[in-house]
Amino acid sequence: MCCVKYGVTRDYVLGLEVVTGTGEVVRLGRRTSKGVAGYDLVGLMVGAEGTLGVVTEITVRLRRLPPVGVTAVGYFDSVGQAGDAVRATAAAGLRPAALELVDRHCLRAVDAWKNMGLSAEADVVLLARFDDDGRAAEEGARRMVDCFRGAGSTWADRSETEEEAEMLFAARRLAFPALERLGPVLTEDICVPIGAVAEMLARIDRTAERHRITIANIAHVGDGNLHPLLVTEHGDAAAQVRARAAFDDIIADALELGGTVTGEHGVGLLKRPGLTRELGPAVLEMHRAVKRALDPAGILNPGKVFGPA
Amino acid sequence: MCCVKYGVTRDYVLGLEVVTGTGEVVRLGRRTSKGVAGYDLVGLMVGAEGTLGVVTEITVRLRRLPPVGVTAVGYFDSVGQAGDAVRATAAAGLRPAALELVDRHCLRAVDAWKNMGLSAEADVVLLARFDDDGRAAEEGARRMVDCFRGAGSTWADRSETEEEAEMLFAARRLAFPALERLGPVLTEDICVPIGAVAEMLARIDRTAERHRITIANIAHVGDGNLHPLLVTEHGDAAAQVRARAAFDDIIADALELGGTVTGEHGVGLLKRPGLTRELGPAVLEMHRAVKRALDPAGILNPGKVFGPA
Repeated sequence: MCCVKYGVTRDYVLGLEVVTGTGEVVRLGRRTSKGVAGYDLVGLMVGAEGTLGVVTEITVRLRRLPPVGVTAVGYFDSVGQAGDAVRATAAAGLRPAALELVDRHCLRAVDAWKNMGLSAEADVVLLARFDDDGRAAEEGARRMVDCFRGAGSTWADRSETEEEAEMLFAARRLAFPALERLGPVLTEDICVPIGAVAEMLARIDRTAERHRITIANIAHVGDGNLHPLLVTEHGDAAAQVRARAAFDDIIADALELGGTVTGEHGVGLLKRPGLTRELGPAVLEMHRAVKRALDPAGILNPGKVFGPA
Repeated sequence: MCCVKYGVTRDYVLGLEVVTGTGEVVRLGRRTSKGVAGYDLVGLMVGAEGTLGVVTEITVRLRRLPPVGVTAVGYFDSVGQAGDAVRATAAAGLRPAALELVDRHCLRAVDAWKNMGLSAEADVVLLARFDDDGRAAEEGARRMVDCFRGAGSTWADRSETEEEAEMLFAARRLAFPALERLGPVLTEDICVPIGAVAEMLARIDRTAERHRITIANIAHVGDGNLHPLLVTEHGDAAAQVRARAAFDDIIADALELGGTVTGEHGVGLLKRPGLTRELGPAVLEMHRAVKRALDPAGILNPGKVFGPA
């Protein structure tokens, strides 16, 4: 959840031990905080989903554990308003450690399971955590609350206690298993520019209506990384077909808004068509050329990401 | 100078327009803050020194301009003590925006040119800048001064005024041109783990003695990124031969201490032998395979970085 301030896994991987496509064991990367000796093969391996080598050891950059921090909460009547609030926080230059969105479908599912009473109070919840040292965290949370109120929150405040903040983040963490209790969940993982978050959430709502399925939203919204969760009922094969069509529509909308088909989960098998659309033929061929160069025998996680040549 | 807090160029490049080795114009990367659609070809291009494509457009991630900040200064009698101070600041978890070292050779050269009077006061100067919001910068600078004093600084304090801080950073910036007034300068660019900075600086001193040349040091020392500057006199061909030998010894020492042959300047022609030593044959062959894949005709900055196959 803390990518919005701390970046992603790739930013923390300094070195790797890798078994290559030609059967050699090599060390890539470095142990220093900077370095430009040769190509960034470490960055190339991270996120390659095992298609360029088998990673057998990882050297990571460490950071000190941050303070617990201060949490700001905003309740909203619509995802549109929540999207506006996110844009306002980005424009104000706020740097929360986490900025998460949980929508009404998730709140209801969590309440149905754990009876936390959240869905009666809000349609959409935004949660922001600031973990800066000293008074900077308090100050960040105060300004975040101002942004929430400015965007039309029905209620917004800083958490008074650590327990209260933990309870809200617990609801966020429970959203996915709570939805899975209702039926099979197809998890999306699109990422759009921050300015397009509100529009993307609106389109997701229309997609749900059009295909007559439930699409819940949890989102690392400070990054524009949305996880629409397409929920159907067990054994409803027709709904599952409609969910796949909705899944494709969401990808098409994300691309149209300048986004990407995967913010963090990767391509695997399910997003190969989306990847092909996003990259286009010339860039896809560059990927295939790199793949052939480092896996000449085609033995590393074959068929994944790019599929057969 | 601010990599120690803000990271390097590669961390800020989101997208590229590139003319490929096969003559196509492609767009790589994305406009979103996160994304894992396919291989990180943007990261592969950045730092490839033009050997994988011709970059014609760059989309960068922006940050807000930080406050001017607060500067902490420490004077030391030896590079060893300054190295210990750097290790202490890293162990204390301090996150300055910049942490720079300037040694006696640089201070003397700057004084000989601009008469700033620094070389009479210190053998080595450490400069740290904190640009956090509000009182966090003051607090960081205060703790940095404590680290300097704990490591045996002869004098350490926070700058009282912005002008005073600017003057010290000006001396840092003038070091390179001041040395160039004395003769040809061969610039090193090694990076070692923070814990090895003191030992590396000591080895550089011994290398200078052994080869009877002047080696001045400026360093992005918070990253362990050192720029030993090998200064000879105009027309002294014998000294220039000794400087090249010293250059090679410094690279060997950096590698022995777990470092890299280039922290930020790259390989070009001069560091091809060092790169070969650092990578080893199997990893070098992976580089060549990627190069052949993306530049099948061998037309992109030929001979650079890896040299002829």
